[in-house]
Amino acid sequence: MPTVKLHTDAEASANPRIRAVFDDIRATRKSDFVNNFWRALANQPELLETTWARVKEVMIAPGTLDPLTKELIYIAVSTINSCSYCIHSHTAAARAKGLTPEQHAEFLAVLALASQTNALANALQIPVDPEFTVS
Amino acid sequence: MPTVKLHTDAEASANPRIRAVFDDIRATRKSDFVNNFWRALANQPELLETTWARVKEVMIAPGTLDPLTKELIYIAVSTINSCSYCIHSHTAAARAKGLTPEQHAEFLAVLALASQTNALANALQIPVDPEFTVS
Amino acid sequence: MPTVKLHTDAEASANPRIRAVFDDIRATRKSDFVNNFWRALANQPELLETTWARVKEVMIAPGTLDPLTKELIYIAVSTINSCSYCIHSHTAAARAKGLTPEQHAEFLAVLALASQTNALANALQIPVDPEFTVS
Amino acid sequence: MPTVKLHTDAEASANPRIRAVFDDIRATRKSDFVNNFWRALANQPELLETTWARVKEVMIAPGTLDPLTKELIYIAVSTINSCSYCIHSHTAAARAKGLTPEQHAEFLAVLALASQTNALANALQIPVDPEFTVS
Amino acid sequence: MPTVKLHTDAEASANPRIRAVFDDIRATRKSDFVNNFWRALANQPELLETTWARVKEVMIAPGTLDPLTKELIYIAVSTINSCSYCIHSHTAAARAKGLTPEQHAEFLAVLALASQTNALANALQIPVDPEFTVS
Amino acid sequence: MPTVKLHTDAEASANPRIRAVFDDIRATRKSDFVNNFWRALANQPELLETTWARVKEVMIAPGTLDPLTKELIYIAVSTINSCSYCIHSHTAAARAKGLTPEQHAEFLAVLALASQTNALANALQIPVDPEFTVS
Repeated sequence: MPTVKLHTDAEASANPRIRAVFDDIRATRKSDFVNNFWRALANQPELLETTWARVKEVMIAPGTLDPLTKELIYIAVSTINSCSYCIHSHTAAARAKGLTPEQHAEFLAVLALASQTNALANALQIPVDPEFTVS
Repeated sequence: MPTVKLHTDAEASANPRIRAVFDDIRATRKSDFVNNFWRALANQPELLETTWARVKEVMIAPGTLDPLTKELIYIAVSTINSCSYCIHSHTAAARAKGLTPEQHAEFLAVLALASQTNALANALQIPVDPEFTVS
Repeated sequence: MPTVKLHTDAEASANPRIRAVFDDIRATRKSDFVNNFWRALANQPELLETTWARVKEVMIAPGTLDPLTKELIYIAVSTINSCSYCIHSHTAAARAKGLTPEQHAEFLAVLALASQTNALANALQIPVDPEFTVS
Repeated sequence: MPTVKLHTDAEASANPRIRAVFDDIRATRKSDFVNNFWRALANQPELLETTWARVKEVMIAPGTLDPLTKELIYIAVSTINSCSYCIHSHTAAARAKGLTPEQHAEFLAVLALASQTNALANALQIPVDPEFTVS
Repeated sequence: MPTVKLHTDAEASANPRIRAVFDDIRATRKSDFVNNFWRALANQPELLETTWARVKEVMIAPGTLDPLTKELIYIAVSTINSCSYCIHSHTAAARAKGLTPEQHAEFLAVLALASQTNALANALQIPVDPEFTVS
Repeated sequence: MPTVKLHTDAEASANPRIRAVFDDIRATRKSDFVNNFWRALANQPELLETTWARVKEVMIAPGTLDPLTKELIYIAVSTINSCSYCIHSHTAAARAKGLTPEQHAEFLAVLALASQTNALANALQIPVDPEFTVS
């Protein structure tokens, strides 16, 4: 149950700012599917525009990290932040970008290990070694 | 200020279980440096042994994700968990494994974007699209 | 699915301590509606009493912050803590206290921006400027 | 200890993109002080530009929420995310925007109460009342 | 909706590694019930094996903390991490190990108090007293 | 560096409300030591009074959970919330209440295991088994 209304295609089309973003999502992804995240943000056209522009720039434009690596970082952040929606949408995105079951298993092993050592390092309040600092 | 004593090399050498782990850390990493995380865990030999064994298996043994990708996932988890020690140690490790300033910048952009959309998706309690579920 | 039983009005009325709190909630809010949070806490009468007393003191008694500002702070905390129940109940409360769609949009923009810069500041472990400290 | 180098004014001035942002920060805030957050982001000019643009738009441009309310939301998010740097910088900003000791005390009371009820609602996994949902 | 397939008994039995773990879970717990956590991990046999081995060692093998205390620590961690599944499974486990309603009420009171003082201590960035440090 | 001034004994004594709480802390704990948490809260006398009253009721008054178990729950919450101050103060409190190195090691093992399985359960979005629900 969302805390805001989800915009239908008809409602989105009635507002030029929203329609422009939805059109660009469809054109960029070459798919007619617009997921609920954007339908919820449509209640705030300015936030919809700036968020989509940033997703397009960071996740879709080519760079020095490959697209699958970016998705794994995204899932890691979303898992620790307990964002159920984001875990689902970016695990699906990672699969669409070629995530294999073996890679998923290794990703989960790193995620679990980091969570475990984070808890230990925080509980023990371990001081940072001078060797790790930037000179 | 740690909440436990950090073991010096002399103290570690006096206990065969601790010495065996420290020796293996040095041999595996081909370096004499043993960082504070292990010096703190040395107070709990069983935890020291199982944690090092897991780090060796997950982070060092070859797999289908490359070592740098694993480090980026590790830093992402550590950042969201606010583990200062782990952020420092794994950013240093990522650099040692070849992280370039351009890759670091892209990593930070993904981290920031994911944090931002996590907050929005949670605040709006957006329902998961059926398209994202596993059949 | 709660991990404890939710008290019905009949069950609440059978226990004088619980009934007294439920009566005060209804009188204070001028509404017959008692939401599930209190029905769950009713399993722990002491916790029910102290929690309601604190909510009444902090959120309802007049002070120097206006009621809507308090609700926005509450939603911000609940979002970062991923408390689905609290996000729902306090977004509804904020609307009842006059939150407009424009204010909601601005709130979400601040929430998203803070989450993003928090991640960056933590990942970069930026030292606090002396200018920010209390003399 | 930051995980990246902090740019001095001399270093910032040597790069036109960085200098432009630093100049705009100084002009917008009518102050010569550029805090460490921007000196750290200067390692990533694109991230520096987009982050500053967003801070200027969300926190400084006039809107329907007053500037102090925005700072309180920012501190709430930063506290729950355990971002020491952001807690310091935005508490200082809130004071600069007129936060009184009485308002600070009330803010802390709301922050503490929300944290407490979040933990209870999560531990009890309380189901959302239908009354709170958006029709 | 899980992000991976949950293994049925028939599917688990078809893979010797998975079957061995499921058999050991049933024998150790003296119950035919294998909960969904293990059915999800069955997609990653290595992770299934190492996670079950660790649960058996840490939570089931006798030690100096009693089993109920361990479950309360587990629920506390799971609540703050907003892990709905873990809150449910370990609250059920705590009840099976004798948790009384009075103990549950006291546990919740400690959980709520700690969350509250954590928020205050972080918001105020209180420096650690020298008296609390390990000499 | 705190975001508020820490009250010295002289300053605390000048305000009857603050002095009364400090006196009660000293009398209850049979020690002259008043730690920084209370010296920071002294800026907000109402918050100081209600927080100390709650700590005294929840952590010090006798109940059905023993004092050491309560401290371990407190440290677990504080670790996951990354509250450095609280980790230090409650680890010291646990030691004062008899925590042995063996118990500390087992506590850390549970903390690490729970963090690890929380991450896995959240990443896999595992549905709660009907067997775990309250009828």
